[in-house]
Amino acid sequence: MRIDPGQHRADQPVRAGIPEHGRIPRYYAAKIELLALLDELGEGAPLPSERELAERCGVSRVTLRQAVTELVLEGRLIRRHGSRTVVAPPKLLQPLALTSYTEGVRAQGREPGRIVVTVETRPADARLAADLRLEPGEDVVHLERVLQADGERVGLESSYLSKARFPRLLDDFDPAGSLYAFLHEELDVRFGEAEERIETVLATPREALLIGTNPATPMILLHRLTWTPDGEPVERVRSLFRGDRFTFVTHLHS
Amino acid sequence: MRIDPGQHRADQPVRAGIPEHGRIPRYYAAKIELLALLDELGEGAPLPSERELAERCGVSRVTLRQAVTELVLEGRLIRRHGSRTVVAPPKLLQPLALTSYTEGVRAQGREPGRIVVTVETRPADARLAADLRLEPGEDVVHLERVLQADGERVGLESSYLSKARFPRLLDDFDPAGSLYAFLHEELDVRFGEAEERIETVLATPREALLIGTNPATPMILLHRLTWTPDGEPVERVRSLFRGDRFTFVTHLHS
Repeated sequence: MRIDPGQHRADQPVRAGIPEHGRIPRYYAAKIELLALLDELGEGAPLPSERELAERCGVSRVTLRQAVTELVLEGRLIRRHGSRTVVAPPKLLQPLALTSYTEGVRAQGREPGRIVVTVETRPADARLAADLRLEPGEDVVHLERVLQADGERVGLESSYLSKARFPRLLDDFDPAGSLYAFLHEELDVRFGEAEERIETVLATPREALLIGTNPATPMILLHRLTWTPDGEPVERVRSLFRGDRFTFVTHLHS
Repeated sequence: MRIDPGQHRADQPVRAGIPEHGRIPRYYAAKIELLALLDELGEGAPLPSERELAERCGVSRVTLRQAVTELVLEGRLIRRHGSRTVVAPPKLLQPLALTSYTEGVRAQGREPGRIVVTVETRPADARLAADLRLEPGEDVVHLERVLQADGERVGLESSYLSKARFPRLLDDFDPAGSLYAFLHEELDVRFGEAEERIETVLATPREALLIGTNPATPMILLHRLTWTPDGEPVERVRSLFRGDRFTFVTHLHS
């Protein structure tokens, strides 16, 4: 029997990771052993000392560190500043849907939050102008906000809207709030459909600094373009989410 | 004016990456300069020598190597075995839809291929049994295949189907072919809907070896569970795609 590599089991510690030639890298065997330990310890529990773990896994501290680093990058462990490494909570499940970040996070019993980084008007470049059906150089409103869940920084979102279409946006909208709630409730703007592109990228140094993550953490990048039911473009959004903290879910229909 | 960090422009080389404190990491400045160069060189062109590039960017060869490594991980450069590093083609655009990998790749004018790794019958564990509505321990057919596009290895797919529901699958289906085409055309199985989960993960050493990728390459992991229009489970699939080679796209409706 083979194990699905996504589901490590304590009683079958290494089959999932072995290359066909049968040699198991030491760090990977240690990682599988640590994964079983994390399940035992449970969310929020501190990881035992490096020395203790290296002894337990029968590897050098250098090798152990490689296993721990991968578990941190994968979101199974959280390295807290100035304190110990702890077992991470499960990833946040976010729907790919025409709902806001706010609704998605609330649906899971977490408190959404936003930290405003940039609020500005600027001229649209050629691609943004084409997406929003403007002339290049026409003004767009740009909102850049760090996304939080229960006070933790988990993503970074840049929204672009036509200034001509939403002339009072910067006056009337509180940029720390939900843009979708404002558009729906205050301006009666309805969404018809959207195209969303999903990629994995590395954060730029600036992004890593804003989100407070390690630049080696794989991030999920969403590019969304939203239209009204009449086919008028509403906004283009670029959202970057910590890959170690989010799973996206979508329902497909034939 | 600020630049969307996803769209680097040669004439504004560093604003996108600067941390708020204004210090630009040297490797990042080199990376932005290289990005502009890649656009000039064009797809498939070999990268100039490390020495030449380090000189051109005014950085050490160690720093230059960091910039090149990130560009390789992000899919902008391809490091060929035993030869030079070349400029990568654009990422493959794959729809999140109830269509097969085969159709998605063909739609882009590329030739899909599959290399069969595992064909076996095995007992379902508790979670798989629940997903496929079986008793734990009941037999499932497991097909594991490396996915190719134009002969290049780009992903790894594991499909699980109930043996009782598809008793002749292993006899009648050519595992190098399209499973969806077989289900639709030979068995008249229709798909009603599916749930798909999207994450970014690091490949296991075994997976990296099978796909022929660097274990540090971020991968996109899709977990799909598909039902017939009557709500009967058809298959569970775990697909791993090279994050440096794929963009997924979905259309959202209100």
